[in-house]
Amino acid sequence: MSLLESTILRIMSIAPELSIEARWILPMTEPDRVLEHHALLIANGRILDILPQDEAARRHPQVPRVVRPAHLLMPGLINAHTHAAMSLFRGLAEGLPLQRWLSEKIWPLERRMVDARFVRDGSLLSMAEMLRAGITCFADMYLFPDETAKIVAEQGLRARIGLPVADFPSPWAQEPAEYLGKALEVRDAFKGHPRIDCAFAPHAPYSVSDATIERIRTLADELDAPIAIHLHESAQEIAESLRRHRVRPIERLQRLGLLGPTLNAIHMTHVSPADMELARLSRISVTLCTESNLKLGNGAPPVRDWTRSELAVGLGSDGPASNNDHDLWLEIRLAALLARACGDEPPALTPWSALALATRGSAAALGLAEHVGTLAPGKWADLCCVDFDRPAMQPVYDPVAQLVFSGGRDCVSDVWVAGRPLLEAGELTRLDWPAVRARAQEWARRMSQG
Amino acid sequence: MSLLESTILRIMSIAPELSIEARWILPMTEPDRVLEHHALLIANGRILDILPQDEAARRHPQVPRVVRPAHLLMPGLINAHTHAAMSLFRGLAEGLPLQRWLSEKIWPLERRMVDARFVRDGSLLSMAEMLRAGITCFADMYLFPDETAKIVAEQGLRARIGLPVADFPSPWAQEPAEYLGKALEVRDAFKGHPRIDCAFAPHAPYSVSDATIERIRTLADELDAPIAIHLHESAQEIAESLRRHRVRPIERLQRLGLLGPTLNAIHMTHVSPADMELARLSRISVTLCTESNLKLGNGAPPVRDWTRSELAVGLGSDGPASNNDHDLWLEIRLAALLARACGDEPPALTPWSALALATRGSAAALGLAEHVGTLAPGKWADLCCVDFDRPAMQPVYDPVAQLVFSGGRDCVSDVWVAGRPLLEAGELTRLDWPAVRARAQEWARRMSQG
Repeated sequence: MSLLESTILRIMSIAPELSIEARWILPMTEPDRVLEHHALLIANGRILDILPQDEAARRHPQVPRVVRPAHLLMPGLINAHTHAAMSLFRGLAEGLPLQRWLSEKIWPLERRMVDARFVRDGSLLSMAEMLRAGITCFADMYLFPDETAKIVAEQGLRARIGLPVADFPSPWAQEPAEYLGKALEVRDAFKGHPRIDCAFAPHAPYSVSDATIERIRTLADELDAPIAIHLHESAQEIAESLRRHRVRPIERLQRLGLLGPTLNAIHMTHVSPADMELARLSRISVTLCTESNLKLGNGAPPVRDWTRSELAVGLGSDGPASNNDHDLWLEIRLAALLARACGDEPPALTPWSALALATRGSAAALGLAEHVGTLAPGKWADLCCVDFDRPAMQPVYDPVAQLVFSGGRDCVSDVWVAGRPLLEAGELTRLDWPAVRARAQEWARRMSQG
Repeated sequence: MSLLESTILRIMSIAPELSIEARWILPMTEPDRVLEHHALLIANGRILDILPQDEAARRHPQVPRVVRPAHLLMPGLINAHTHAAMSLFRGLAEGLPLQRWLSEKIWPLERRMVDARFVRDGSLLSMAEMLRAGITCFADMYLFPDETAKIVAEQGLRARIGLPVADFPSPWAQEPAEYLGKALEVRDAFKGHPRIDCAFAPHAPYSVSDATIERIRTLADELDAPIAIHLHESAQEIAESLRRHRVRPIERLQRLGLLGPTLNAIHMTHVSPADMELARLSRISVTLCTESNLKLGNGAPPVRDWTRSELAVGLGSDGPASNNDHDLWLEIRLAALLARACGDEPPALTPWSALALATRGSAAALGLAEHVGTLAPGKWADLCCVDFDRPAMQPVYDPVAQLVFSGGRDCVSDVWVAGRPLLEAGELTRLDWPAVRARAQEWARRMSQG
């Protein structure tokens, strides 16, 4: 019996604690399947069942109900790559290409400003934004990951915490051994947490040595831990790798044994057919950050080709200093639009498949598909509810196309994570927005004073 | 003395009737100019002055004030191309390329369903959406343009009403002479209206004959009227023109005398360097509809090249059946992102220039730059107010970059047209949304029943 089956059996005997009734439920379990006038039942933070509303009411007359009559209930969006705390740098260093942006602006600022409080305050700001945009889970990669994890634990979201490793010093650690030592401490501190797990996060091929990569590979194997790395983000990264290592970055990672199903390669923007074939053969997963790539002058990733690759492909916002927001609706729309640029008929990516990227796709890319990303009995009740009672969302012929081509963060009404409401009718339930805003503004004042 | 100068002198002697105080005012008169803690004064529907808040209060202590302390006040967005009534088709025929979408789906539906009531109800739905997205003026092109104009007059927006002409029959007219006769009637009916003017709107090169184009040219010259036409939207359009006329569409229009500063060419997506040079020499204006082009499989227009062409370039949403929304914020973002695809340093399009496309650029493309598109004394008080008190909009280092890369329709709090509030703190003041929604849903039921 699988873990999933045993989980289902365990919860089947439990009475539901909440029923959410929506005009449409989009389980994302199979293409274009939309359930009308159904209810989703929750027990112990997990999905117990999805039933027609009348049947749910008959079987469970006592259960508290949330009624959303003009809404669509779907899996919470999963932001498969971000640097949440960088929200405090949003808009601070505009107009530069990736490498100059990093080396002239972001890294010096980080060395001067970033500490545990910065990461706490910046992560909170990003979490407020993500919740309002229907994001229930995010994969982070930043300094002081223990602070981000603490805030996630407090605020009720779900997160994959990236444990950063780099060869260069930062306010978090001085050299690879210190990064790795702290990584293991954070991992231990949150071991077994129902909403938090950790991944090793070597920054990028150009910022970690062969020896560091090999050490990470060994540790990740021993601990059965996932790994996330920025890869093939810019033409310059590839040129530099060819110059220093005589191979392309993905080939170097292969030689070092890093490629495999537990590796999440972020960006994969500049890729040759051979790079793509190597990715496919080694069954890595891919996270696309289209808007960030475009904004930093790297061009768009080959969305159409990646979505046809049969690999797990998810979407990420990247850090809010390079995007400049956590709007996965826009990433979904961009993926759908850019996949059509070739004029394939029928289009390369259907609306359902575009939505899949930011739900089940991101979950699979993070290795979390057993737990989240679709609405099915036994999965966590991580939910996003979208209000169609908006001028841009009426009339409704095709709710799935409407979500992708007319929807947006402004249509998100409610969010639940593990069955707990974190956004209710557009209002944050737990997060104290005025306090978060005040602290963000205080950081901006400090930053502007230099 | 110019019209503008005389207007200014006329209103300078009048006391303001309203003062709007905002944290930032973005007049869009010159690059990157942002006024802090200023007030915009309105008299007779026009901008009287923009002054520091303390000075405005001292000079005009009695004037009613609207205070927006966390907001940015800017020119209302101008949607330089749409088919507003097609909102009732939104999401109805997904996944087809342009020509099949038109000939297999949209045109048969139009023949069966479209009448005056359809256009009224669909236009109202689009106006609700546009107002909530900060759009104060739109250039429309659809059947029953008299109905659209009536609704605009009633609801208080500003519009350029396109008077459709085609060789094929529609529920509006049977053949070119009837289209033109009705066009002149509509033009006469709204002559001198302070918020409405008209343009001849031959549908596209492939749907109007040489004789019809020549007739329009003559009429437009006589009446000093602008012309709008879909042009170079798809590769198929160009191939068909080469086959039937042995020239590219823009060359054919040149031969027929249609190219000139009063011609607004919509799309201009598939263009050769020679097409672009011809456009530049003849000083036509261009309206880009990037999302629609991408969605219908036509690829993106060359945003970077058009914005460097020194022509007047604006942005349009195109019809909500092909986009599928009226979100100019997204068009602005797409323009900024796609212009960076080449990795120019500095980026080809600054955030300010991207915003300019949907404000002063659209105004210039429509020949309305003297009246709207920037905030300057004498111009109409057509305003959009953006609330920065949102997680995605904090902290603020660079309000202009923030608008372009983090903003969106959801941040629009208020809209004024000719000084009248049409959206107040997120609520439509005049338009009856429940009634509009009910009628849209009734149309959808009829459409679904076939």
